[in-house]
Amino acid sequence: MTQRVYNFSAGPAVLPVPVLEQVQREMLALPGVGASILEISHRSGAFLPIIEDAEKNLRKLLSISDDYAVLFLQGGSRLQFSMVPMNLLGPGQVADYILTGSWGNDALKEAKKAGETRIAWDGKAGNYDRVPRREELNLEPQAAYVHFTSNETIQGVQFAAEPEVGDVPLVCDASSDFLHRPLPVHKYGLIYACAQKNAGPAGVTVVIIRKELLKRSDPKLPGYLSYDVHAQNGSMWNTPPTFAVYVLKLVAEWLLSEVGGLEAMHARNKEKARLLYEELDRSGGFYAGHARPECRSLMNVTFRLPSEELTTQFVSEAKKRNLHELKGHRSVGGIRASIYNAMPLAGVEALRDFMEEFRRKNG
Amino acid sequence: MTQRVYNFSAGPAVLPVPVLEQVQREMLALPGVGASILEISHRSGAFLPIIEDAEKNLRKLLSISDDYAVLFLQGGSRLQFSMVPMNLLGPGQVADYILTGSWGNDALKEAKKAGETRIAWDGKAGNYDRVPRREELNLEPQAAYVHFTSNETIQGVQFAAEPEVGDVPLVCDASSDFLHRPLPVHKYGLIYACAQKNAGPAGVTVVIIRKELLKRSDPKLPGYLSYDVHAQNGSMWNTPPTFAVYVLKLVAEWLLSEVGGLEAMHARNKEKARLLYEELDRSGGFYAGHARPECRSLMNVTFRLPSEELTTQFVSEAKKRNLHELKGHRSVGGIRASIYNAMPLAGVEALRDFMEEFRRKNG
Repeated sequence: MTQRVYNFSAGPAVLPVPVLEQVQREMLALPGVGASILEISHRSGAFLPIIEDAEKNLRKLLSISDDYAVLFLQGGSRLQFSMVPMNLLGPGQVADYILTGSWGNDALKEAKKAGETRIAWDGKAGNYDRVPRREELNLEPQAAYVHFTSNETIQGVQFAAEPEVGDVPLVCDASSDFLHRPLPVHKYGLIYACAQKNAGPAGVTVVIIRKELLKRSDPKLPGYLSYDVHAQNGSMWNTPPTFAVYVLKLVAEWLLSEVGGLEAMHARNKEKARLLYEELDRSGGFYAGHARPECRSLMNVTFRLPSEELTTQFVSEAKKRNLHELKGHRSVGGIRASIYNAMPLAGVEALRDFMEEFRRKNG
Repeated sequence: MTQRVYNFSAGPAVLPVPVLEQVQREMLALPGVGASILEISHRSGAFLPIIEDAEKNLRKLLSISDDYAVLFLQGGSRLQFSMVPMNLLGPGQVADYILTGSWGNDALKEAKKAGETRIAWDGKAGNYDRVPRREELNLEPQAAYVHFTSNETIQGVQFAAEPEVGDVPLVCDASSDFLHRPLPVHKYGLIYACAQKNAGPAGVTVVIIRKELLKRSDPKLPGYLSYDVHAQNGSMWNTPPTFAVYVLKLVAEWLLSEVGGLEAMHARNKEKARLLYEELDRSGGFYAGHARPECRSLMNVTFRLPSEELTTQFVSEAKKRNLHELKGHRSVGGIRASIYNAMPLAGVEALRDFMEEFRRKNG
C-alpha cells in the first residue's frame, strides 16, 4: 500500500482507509454503471440510491425520526451562519447565541447582519477555556432559537451534552464533532455540520431540521438559501455535490458496519482522548492544556509548550515520526492534535509515545 | 480496465479518462504527502499549490488578465442566480436579462427577488429555438448588467459569440459550455460556471469577475454571498471544495497538455457536433432538431423522433450499444446527446452510426 502518515489535521481530516480504498476501486466506473461517480447525473438511477442511502444511514446512526428533514447542502458552515438566521429569525424576533470559541463568534457576526441577536453566554473572559454551566445561561424565553457550537476546533472545548434551553428551538453547529457520539436529535430544532471532520470530504454540509421549522422560510428568500426549498426538492433543487455525498454514504456505512454504531465510536473516541489528556496531566505543566478538564474536546486536543522554540521543535520532530499537521490554529498557536473518528488508536498511541519521549528529553 | 460506457449525460458528465486514472492512483495518498486529497487541510502546503495551479491553468487557457479575479465557490449556478444580483444590482438600478431557454428563466426568477429587472429579449414565442440577433436586443443603456446564458442545455441552443451590449457589464452563465472554446474574457464583467459539464465534478463553481466590480458588493451581504469577501480571501474565506478544485486542476492540465488548448478543443467539439447534426439534416425529418441550424449547441444535441414509442425504443436500443443517458430533459422530452469536451470522437461516431441504423430500420 501507498505510504501513509498519521494526519492530525483539524479538517479536512483523516478518513477511514476502507472508504478511500472503495473510492479508489470504483473511480473509473461504479459497479454495474460503467461511469465514474464523478460523471453520473444526480437524477440518474445510479445516483439516487446513493443519496437515499446516505440519508438512511444517517437516520439509522442518529435515530432521526420522520419529524426531521435531512438535507445535503453546499457552502459549508459559513453559509449556515447566514442561512440559520435568514430562515429562522423573523422580524421583531431575537436569537440567542452561546459563545464558547472562535466559530460561535463567527456565527454571531453573520447572524447580526440578518436580525436581532443576544449573547446568552460568552466565555471570552476565560479565553474560551470552557462551556457554561446551566445556571450561567442568560436565555430569552421568547427567542426564535438558541445557537451553540458543540465543539470548538480552535480552542478544543466541547459540550459533553447539549445545553438545556427549554422550549426554544436549539440550533447546533456540530461541524467538528458530528457523528462522534449518539445525539438525542429530538432535543434539537436544527443541527448543521460540514462533512470534512468526521463525515466525509469538504464540499457537503448536512442539515437536520425539524420539519415544523421549515414553515419559517420566507418564500422571498434567495432560492438556494431556503431550507424549505431544499426540503421540498429532496436536496435536488440544484445539483448536489454528488461525490461528497457518495463518500459521506461510505463513511456512514463504515460507522454502522465496521465500527458498530455511534456508542462504539464514542467509546473509541473517549479512549483515544484519554491517552493524550493523561499525558498532559502527568507532564507537570510541560504540556499545558487549554481547555478546563471537564470541557476538554474529544476531537481536538489543544495545548502549549513552554516556549515557541520547543513548539517548533515538537512539530518538526513529530513530522519525522510520520505524525503530521500538529501545529495549532494560526489564531492561537501552540499544538493541536485532531483525533476525529477515523484517526486510529495506533496513531494516537504513536503521538502519546512521542510526547512522552519529547518531554523527557526537553522537560 | 474497468468496462466503461459512452455517457451522454447532460451533467454531471463524462470526464477525461487520464484525469480519472490520476485521481484513482492518488486516492490513498498524494505523492509526497502521505494523505489523500480528501484528507488534507485547505491551508496545508500540499493543497495551496493545487488551488494556485487550478487558477493558473484557467488563466492560461482563457488568457485571463490580472484585471479579473478567479474564484472557486460552492452552491452551483443556482446560488450564482442570487449572488449576481445581490452583489451587482444596487437599489434604484435595473438589470437586463436575455432569455434563450430554461436556465435563463430560472436566473431571472431569482434576480427578481433581489431587485429590478428587465427582459432584453425572450425567445419564448419560438419555444426557445434560437438566440437573438443583435438588432432584436432591447437593452437599457444604464443597466447594472446584462445577463445571458451562453448555452441552454435543455433546449440545445447556444450563442456562437457573446452578444454586443456596449459598456454595460456583460454577465454570463457559462455553466454548460465553459472551456469548450477560447473566450474574449475582456468583453465580460462576470462569467460563472458550475464545473460538472466540462470542467470537473459537481461541487465547485468558477467565477471570473472584473475586479472593478468587486466594489459593488455591499459589506452587509451575508459573508458567503459576497464576491468581495471571497476575492479578498483567495477563495479561502471558508473551506473550499478541495477535491473538486483538484479535479478541475487536472482537467485544465489535460486541456493544456493533451488537447493543446481551447482552439484545439473547439475544433474537436465542432467536428463532433457536425457528425450528429449532419445525420439530423439527412434524416428527412425523422430526427427533428430543436434548435435552428445557426444556433445549434456544440454541447447538447437535442431532437425528437416521430413518436413517443420510437423515442423510448431509441433510448433502450442505444443503451444496449453502451450509449447511455440519451433521454431528453424531463421538461421537454425527446432525445438529448450531450457531447462535452471529454466525450471522445469514437463515442459520437458510435452514436451517429446507431442513429443511421435506427433510422433505416424505423424510418
